[in-house]
Amino acid sequence: MRPVSLERGAAPNAEGSCLVSFGNTTVLCAVSVEDGVPGWKKGKGEGWLTAEYAMLPRATNTRTSRERGQVGGRTQEIQRLIGRSVRAMLDDFKWGEYTLKVDCDVMRADGGTRTAAITGAAVAVCDAFDWMVATGRVVASPVRRRVAAVSVGVVDGRPLLDLEYVEDVRAEVDANVVMSSEGRFVEVQGTGENGTFARAELDALLDLATNGITALHSAQAHALSHPRPHSSASPSPRR
Amino acid sequence: MRPVSLERGAAPNAEGSCLVSFGNTTVLCAVSVEDGVPGWKKGKGEGWLTAEYAMLPRATNTRTSRERGQVGGRTQEIQRLIGRSVRAMLDDFKWGEYTLKVDCDVMRADGGTRTAAITGAAVAVCDAFDWMVATGRVVASPVRRRVAAVSVGVVDGRPLLDLEYVEDVRAEVDANVVMSSEGRFVEVQGTGENGTFARAELDALLDLATNGITALHSAQAHALSHPRPHSSASPSPRR
Amino acid sequence: MRPVSLERGAAPNAEGSCLVSFGNTTVLCAVSVEDGVPGWKKGKGEGWLTAEYAMLPRATNTRTSRERGQVGGRTQEIQRLIGRSVRAMLDDFKWGEYTLKVDCDVMRADGGTRTAAITGAAVAVCDAFDWMVATGRVVASPVRRRVAAVSVGVVDGRPLLDLEYVEDVRAEVDANVVMSSEGRFVEVQGTGENGTFARAELDALLDLATNGITALHSAQAHALSHPRPHSSASPSPRR
Amino acid sequence: MRPVSLERGAAPNAEGSCLVSFGNTTVLCAVSVEDGVPGWKKGKGEGWLTAEYAMLPRATNTRTSRERGQVGGRTQEIQRLIGRSVRAMLDDFKWGEYTLKVDCDVMRADGGTRTAAITGAAVAVCDAFDWMVATGRVVASPVRRRVAAVSVGVVDGRPLLDLEYVEDVRAEVDANVVMSSEGRFVEVQGTGENGTFARAELDALLDLATNGITALHSAQAHALSHPRPHSSASPSPRR
Amino acid sequence: MRPVSLERGAAPNAEGSCLVSFGNTTVLCAVSVEDGVPGWKKGKGEGWLTAEYAMLPRATNTRTSRERGQVGGRTQEIQRLIGRSVRAMLDDFKWGEYTLKVDCDVMRADGGTRTAAITGAAVAVCDAFDWMVATGRVVASPVRRRVAAVSVGVVDGRPLLDLEYVEDVRAEVDANVVMSSEGRFVEVQGTGENGTFARAELDALLDLATNGITALHSAQAHALSHPRPHSSASPSPRR
Amino acid sequence: MRPVSLERGAAPNAEGSCLVSFGNTTVLCAVSVEDGVPGWKKGKGEGWLTAEYAMLPRATNTRTSRERGQVGGRTQEIQRLIGRSVRAMLDDFKWGEYTLKVDCDVMRADGGTRTAAITGAAVAVCDAFDWMVATGRVVASPVRRRVAAVSVGVVDGRPLLDLEYVEDVRAEVDANVVMSSEGRFVEVQGTGENGTFARAELDALLDLATNGITALHSAQAHALSHPRPHSSASPSPRR
Repeated sequence: MRPVSLERGAAPNAEGSCLVSFGNTTVLCAVSVEDGVPGWKKGKGEGWLTAEYAMLPRATNTRTSRERGQVGGRTQEIQRLIGRSVRAMLDDFKWGEYTLKVDCDVMRADGGTRTAAITGAAVAVCDAFDWMVATGRVVASPVRRRVAAVSVGVVDGRPLLDLEYVEDVRAEVDANVVMSSEGRFVEVQGTGENGTFARAELDALLDLATNGITALHSAQAHALSHPRPHSSASPSPRR
Repeated sequence: MRPVSLERGAAPNAEGSCLVSFGNTTVLCAVSVEDGVPGWKKGKGEGWLTAEYAMLPRATNTRTSRERGQVGGRTQEIQRLIGRSVRAMLDDFKWGEYTLKVDCDVMRADGGTRTAAITGAAVAVCDAFDWMVATGRVVASPVRRRVAAVSVGVVDGRPLLDLEYVEDVRAEVDANVVMSSEGRFVEVQGTGENGTFARAELDALLDLATNGITALHSAQAHALSHPRPHSSASPSPRR
Repeated sequence: MRPVSLERGAAPNAEGSCLVSFGNTTVLCAVSVEDGVPGWKKGKGEGWLTAEYAMLPRATNTRTSRERGQVGGRTQEIQRLIGRSVRAMLDDFKWGEYTLKVDCDVMRADGGTRTAAITGAAVAVCDAFDWMVATGRVVASPVRRRVAAVSVGVVDGRPLLDLEYVEDVRAEVDANVVMSSEGRFVEVQGTGENGTFARAELDALLDLATNGITALHSAQAHALSHPRPHSSASPSPRR
Repeated sequence: MRPVSLERGAAPNAEGSCLVSFGNTTVLCAVSVEDGVPGWKKGKGEGWLTAEYAMLPRATNTRTSRERGQVGGRTQEIQRLIGRSVRAMLDDFKWGEYTLKVDCDVMRADGGTRTAAITGAAVAVCDAFDWMVATGRVVASPVRRRVAAVSVGVVDGRPLLDLEYVEDVRAEVDANVVMSSEGRFVEVQGTGENGTFARAELDALLDLATNGITALHSAQAHALSHPRPHSSASPSPRR
Repeated sequence: MRPVSLERGAAPNAEGSCLVSFGNTTVLCAVSVEDGVPGWKKGKGEGWLTAEYAMLPRATNTRTSRERGQVGGRTQEIQRLIGRSVRAMLDDFKWGEYTLKVDCDVMRADGGTRTAAITGAAVAVCDAFDWMVATGRVVASPVRRRVAAVSVGVVDGRPLLDLEYVEDVRAEVDANVVMSSEGRFVEVQGTGENGTFARAELDALLDLATNGITALHSAQAHALSHPRPHSSASPSPRR
Repeated sequence: MRPVSLERGAAPNAEGSCLVSFGNTTVLCAVSVEDGVPGWKKGKGEGWLTAEYAMLPRATNTRTSRERGQVGGRTQEIQRLIGRSVRAMLDDFKWGEYTLKVDCDVMRADGGTRTAAITGAAVAVCDAFDWMVATGRVVASPVRRRVAAVSVGVVDGRPLLDLEYVEDVRAEVDANVVMSSEGRFVEVQGTGENGTFARAELDALLDLATNGITALHSAQAHALSHPRPHSSASPSPRR
């Protein structure tokens, strides 16, 4: 596992934020609390939580064009995965008609951007709900568990944890695993990129991922053990 | 497992086609062989294979709008999954600069449309490559193995195979599994839709899926044991 | 005139549906009854009826791309024509604020897709309004007459009825004619594709079309003489 | 028939142009001669001719939004009709790889904008081909005949020629008729807007249109009897 | 300064209009008064004024494509500039929930289209507000001052007023200046197109522009000294 | 003037980069050197330089939506301004067929994002051209001068330098000024946001801007006095 860092409050305008690094991969996760919910959620007194994902054009080795015309399939897959994963921190949406928007912007990409994004977003969402408590929007945070994620893969026949970019492109099998702080799976996505894989290989990868995610949950717990950083969004009790 | 049927030649204009049903879910898979490859593949003498997925508006219980403006995230995820899965039937793309386009159009949707699509597309792709052999485009079919797919899920705490729509919406855990005819995994996508899942549950689901896919591979083998149906695309040795 | 078939209930989820064939041309017409009307119709207590038209990519001899970015001019012309033609079955829209959406999806294209679509849609709309009567949405069907359509053309100087694709591309003059079951015109669209045409030629084409449409109205009447097929949409008296 | 005027040279930058009025309906038709042809025409040594149609936002009584996002169905139908009609002036496209773009911009709309546009475009196209002759691009003009168009309709049971807007919205039947200067039909589009129509009514409308178009062809001949107006595009023998 | 003309009432359907020419540059400015305001303005009892800008395809020497897909950066800059400039004629928006849309359509482009558009739009807006007074929509016109605009530039080292196209493309420095009839600046946009410029050069350009705009304000005052031309939009006291 | 910082190398993948801060406004400027030029520049042996501008959603106090559908007018104006300004650092484009893309991504917005972006982009462009020299792409850097920019405005009747957001929204007059390191103007854009302005006010603002930009040029010179930071893009002499 590459060195992990989680820096809370990195986007001071946001209600919760976390700059997460897995090695050279760096993602800024910023959570915005907005009044109101999408049309299909209105009138139930419930909230909603959704995610967006993007890369700075020069996060990558060679420039990647901005998705200004149409959002590509890869981006849509990733932001849907982040949204589902972070929603698994909650048992329901009974916190009033507020929408939490989780923006994950990749500053630097060296493999594992989606798993870093999920791990950082989980921290930022904790802070955003605590901000809602502190400003009187909800009585108690609806967070029931944290989630964290890591990529695993088979490279040259060997299972590897937290692949960096040069490993990722060579991997025969590639899996992204999301687990809760209770040690249960939230999402398992395994793909034979250059070939198929046996049940035994999948088992080895899931073991590896479980270990890695345990370490990530410790890092999250440590990061969240300090008081919530000052957010420029926080002073007003009600917007 | 719901009753499965595989009807080859259902789209007589296509170079290979298969109408696949898993219970009330019906998908028309049509493979087109086109001269040329996308820009990024040009000049290597290699081919390409890609997939598109869509639903007829009234495949569903209530009408689903056509994706005429922007293709949604769900559709993009599914057609990317179909493409990756069917490409796993091949070891390389060394069949000349031809593109195979696999169109999967859902006629009726009752759960498991993506797994039915993969299972039917595999049959249609076999026929399309055989058409290329018969018409002198390639010397031998590059197909090395077939793929088939099934959904599994946990409903009311019980693992279920090949979920229909009413089961799918109630499932706590939902997984789509793609396997090769060699008994190896191509893709595993497990999601805790309403909750998380333990390793033991995942293991039970993978056992169930393996059994189901074995049956699907038998059905494919049986369907392909007859001669390739006449295709209106076939008479000319070269287009 | 090529052999005509009209199979009611082919889209079992729809409130009314008809699979229509003119020779090798096959179109699935499915009518959806939806609550509400477009903005410009709201508040008058009236309904609306509109149509969409599309082709499966491999309905044609060589693959036709899906219209996912922008809907082309030909498609727009056809779906506007279908909508206008089917609305001519009614004298007004006084059936409450429901919208009928007529989806015409071409399964196989061999000339005359728009005329087949109109002829099949007319049958499906009859069934959809009968479903509305049976489920208590309206007291009586607002259908006052049926419509049917056929193409006619001049090929090698000879007037021909119901052109198939190879005739259509060679036609000097091409006309689509829509008539009511009362023997009156709904729409006449004659085009000199490769040249102009004299009044006498137009007269001969209109005579030919009138005969063809008389046969189509008989086929519609026969198809509709059986009870309405079971629709999975029908059990509930009110959705 | 409302008063008709045809003013050649109204767009001095264009290779051919004509400001046409049918009563209060005014359309500026400007023809551009561009090097090259669309991709599907390349390499045959042939040209192409195509048309675009638009309205100034305040051509209409109340403002009509610009079609900046998506071009609507009505606009597409009209510009396809103009293109087909003007191409009927030619027997082939053998004038070298030049594209003629006919821009029809409605300055003021009071019914009959498409028929006025066709009538004016025919004049502008004559001048554009004459400019090509004068500047040495072609040896002789490929124009074989002119086309002109008029609308006819049944209002309050009476056939009317060249409907203005208030008549058009009340018409039970509405037809646009395009004819060549040889007295043959190019296009007949008759629609029962509020009801159907009998063969006898269609016959009466076609008689009326034939008379109207005869007058339009005289007006075109008269306008073209003067020398081609100076075009700022003309001095250079080759661009 | 090239000859200037201002012809009020040129778009008879509009509530106010002006056909403005600076030499060969001609722009039709038409103001529409519409009920209601954009969402962000609703409920304050205030109005809004906004502008759109477009060119006829053959306003230019060689054809310019219509902006049907996406509106380009140049167009957006110009229409934002026109909107800001014309809004500077007012001190507030307290005239009720009406939106004035100013459409500036370039008939012929020979440099200075944006400055001509602003100068003509100012006249058309005066007439539109007077129409609102005459029809009882407002008690008094909110116009407090007029605005006019001119381009200035340095060509071959010499400052020039009101550049035509051939001068504009050669200019080293190019500035657009908008001033009020009170002799104050509304907008100054100076750009070193091919090189930078010294403060003294800017000063000389601003002197030149001030003189030119003084002449434009006289032309506007003269044009507005006649009674408001009849608008077909005017008869009804309330729409 | 707020505190200014210029951190070179902040985007290690880019050929040149600079993280610029004016007070709380922070912009990451990353320059990519790409082979090839846009179509209209091809075949002349010349290069091109262009800019894009965007904001992270939570750079602002309340979340700003990503511009994924259509790029707004404000963004287009700003990125066109940045491109023009940075191109003024060069006398020509004679450095071979390479395109420099300058990405300016706002991390935090507190007024003056476009002027900070220009100031930082100038530094990053210097480094990118030096990288081209170091890797043998060009013999010598084509940079002839630097550019820097600042905003000035009149707030409560007093001229202010480098407005922060709360000042910017209250400003009566707002100007953005771009100057070269030779003390000449590149661009002057003054706007009366809430009112008009006299020549004397403009003069005072230009004096103020000149002073501020002098300080910015010193900061740039100081930042560039150190060796070029290591770029991960640099090792290969030729890509």
